[in-house]
Amino acid sequence: MTSDRLARARLTYLAEPADEALNALVKDVGAARAMEMIESGSPGQTARWRQRLADVPDTVDLTEHARNGIRLVCPGDPEWPSRLDDLGEQAPYALWVRGNGDLRFACLRSVAMVGARAATSYGCYVASEIASSLAARGWAIVSGGAYGIDAAAHRGALGAGGVTVAVLACGVDHPYPAGHIELMKAIAADGVVMSEWPPGCNATRLRFLTRNRVIAALATGTLVVEAGRRSGALNTARHARDLERPLMAVPGPVTSEQSVGTNMLLRDWQAAVVTKAADVTAFLGPLDPENPPDPVQPVLPWDELDPSLKAVLDALPARGGASTEQVAAAAGVAFGTALKCLGGLAAGGFAQRCPEGWRIRRAHAAEGVK
Amino acid sequence: MTSDRLARARLTYLAEPADEALNALVKDVGAARAMEMIESGSPGQTARWRQRLADVPDTVDLTEHARNGIRLVCPGDPEWPSRLDDLGEQAPYALWVRGNGDLRFACLRSVAMVGARAATSYGCYVASEIASSLAARGWAIVSGGAYGIDAAAHRGALGAGGVTVAVLACGVDHPYPAGHIELMKAIAADGVVMSEWPPGCNATRLRFLTRNRVIAALATGTLVVEAGRRSGALNTARHARDLERPLMAVPGPVTSEQSVGTNMLLRDWQAAVVTKAADVTAFLGPLDPENPPDPVQPVLPWDELDPSLKAVLDALPARGGASTEQVAAAAGVAFGTALKCLGGLAAGGFAQRCPEGWRIRRAHAAEGVK
Repeated sequence: MTSDRLARARLTYLAEPADEALNALVKDVGAARAMEMIESGSPGQTARWRQRLADVPDTVDLTEHARNGIRLVCPGDPEWPSRLDDLGEQAPYALWVRGNGDLRFACLRSVAMVGARAATSYGCYVASEIASSLAARGWAIVSGGAYGIDAAAHRGALGAGGVTVAVLACGVDHPYPAGHIELMKAIAADGVVMSEWPPGCNATRLRFLTRNRVIAALATGTLVVEAGRRSGALNTARHARDLERPLMAVPGPVTSEQSVGTNMLLRDWQAAVVTKAADVTAFLGPLDPENPPDPVQPVLPWDELDPSLKAVLDALPARGGASTEQVAAAAGVAFGTALKCLGGLAAGGFAQRCPEGWRIRRAHAAEGVK
Repeated sequence: MTSDRLARARLTYLAEPADEALNALVKDVGAARAMEMIESGSPGQTARWRQRLADVPDTVDLTEHARNGIRLVCPGDPEWPSRLDDLGEQAPYALWVRGNGDLRFACLRSVAMVGARAATSYGCYVASEIASSLAARGWAIVSGGAYGIDAAAHRGALGAGGVTVAVLACGVDHPYPAGHIELMKAIAADGVVMSEWPPGCNATRLRFLTRNRVIAALATGTLVVEAGRRSGALNTARHARDLERPLMAVPGPVTSEQSVGTNMLLRDWQAAVVTKAADVTAFLGPLDPENPPDPVQPVLPWDELDPSLKAVLDALPARGGASTEQVAAAAGVAFGTALKCLGGLAAGGFAQRCPEGWRIRRAHAAEGVK
């Protein structure tokens, strides 16, 4: 591990994320030198960061974390989602990531779906339907892993065999809420569970709010499905607006407390009205001329794919389908590599799940890009 | 009766409304001469209007109609709503009117509330609540007298002691639907039941659509409460848009067939989101700097009121309230005159109903305009 990676890993223990002064220092002198300055008690504003020095491990054993399925993703890594750089001095120091999905690939074409914990059956139904339909069209669903709308959105994506990303406000080793441990395992199977906070860290009220900026920053656009007057989802919506990301909301009954926030976003913030998944793709699609909503197009040119992705894509049938084992054998890669590549290819619009396993996404095959 | 009024009354028997060629002819040569030309079979495009000549009475006995509570309102009459002139060559030839309200006064500050006949309990509840609240703030409610949203809007206004206007697609002497005969009587007590078609005329599918342009034209703005994909309310919305009148819609569950149209208006037509009456007044209020939404201000300067209105306004108490009989006695006018003036003063923002009867509207009294 480079000293920069180690320092960034240690910074996630030292300071809360979105610390603009710390990010400015890291930008000025690099993460390793910043950590040294803090540890040696250099003069300046570093004193307040020393309060937590005792909690910061001297070294971080990434091999040990990998044994638990946890990896560190730093700025500049292939898996680093470049959209996070839009957060500027509020960008994460590093990310702790679990799951077989590729975070950057997943986020390239993704929708953040957020909403009330105390959601109604209406909100949960709509979240699940829209997430499922978006996932089937190759969009990844980013959410916060909470009860209510978040869980319905994650589950909708999983039900369609899609990729979903849970952004937590605690360590990825013990997700909050505990009732979602099985959901997090299911998300990690093809997608990603991630956090700015290191393993072992607990969620707090403030951390949920800090976390919300990452949800808004990761996704192409943010859709608020159901939100009461003071829902945390409105905080995510504000971040999306501040980042000038597309903001959408699902209308709801004016008689429902849980739609007061979403109807407010439509009325006062000019959020786009979403009644179904096609409204999302129509709204987000035209933003990228390379990425028309229908048929779904790959998000990257084929020749920019890395060799293992190309090998797996080459191994995919255009009709019928092949199991992950068959794809791995045909591509000459390990099973785990094949699984990860397939997730990335699906999120990128190159591959799709089908009853028999995996195949090339149709619009792609029709154009003979393979 | 002048020859112009008689000719206009006869034109309502002769031709369907919104006949642009007929309106152009009337504009060119006047109603009386146009009627003469049609009866004498002048050359030109008047031939097609002769088909119904046999159905047109030679004379129209307005005294006889008055005995049945029906009056004729022609362009230029004090009660003619000048907004109808915005319809240009689709303006009505004349209006047949029933009720103790003053049509022009009522429409000065009014909201057209329309929606599905096959409305849900949600739609009816919201229509009734918003109409009631708007009526209590001195806004008149214009609608079409149909089952569903229309009836809920009329009833909401009546429940708040407000003024409401029913625009029918048949003669005002036998309202359609027959199940609303009692509702029409209640509307006529303080408000107006009106039609472009003469007494005795039946409603047809086409007439409902023709009628919708008048609903949109009469009101300050149009609010669609609930509408399915093919609801006639969307036709009214289109007229409001074509007239560049403010268009609003109530969001509804994306799972409800009866909110597909309203959510579409919000998404594709940029209709303003309305969740409560205050959204309507906030949206319509700023259009007229003389007419801020809160507190409610009169729509006309006091010194432009006619003598009987001034007399009735002078007779109103600022605190407590007076019955219509007491107001009539204090103002020295007939009971019927007092009732009509009070309706006009309420619609105009000068007077309000209260448990004891009538009093000066508070914002008005506070400014000492009286």
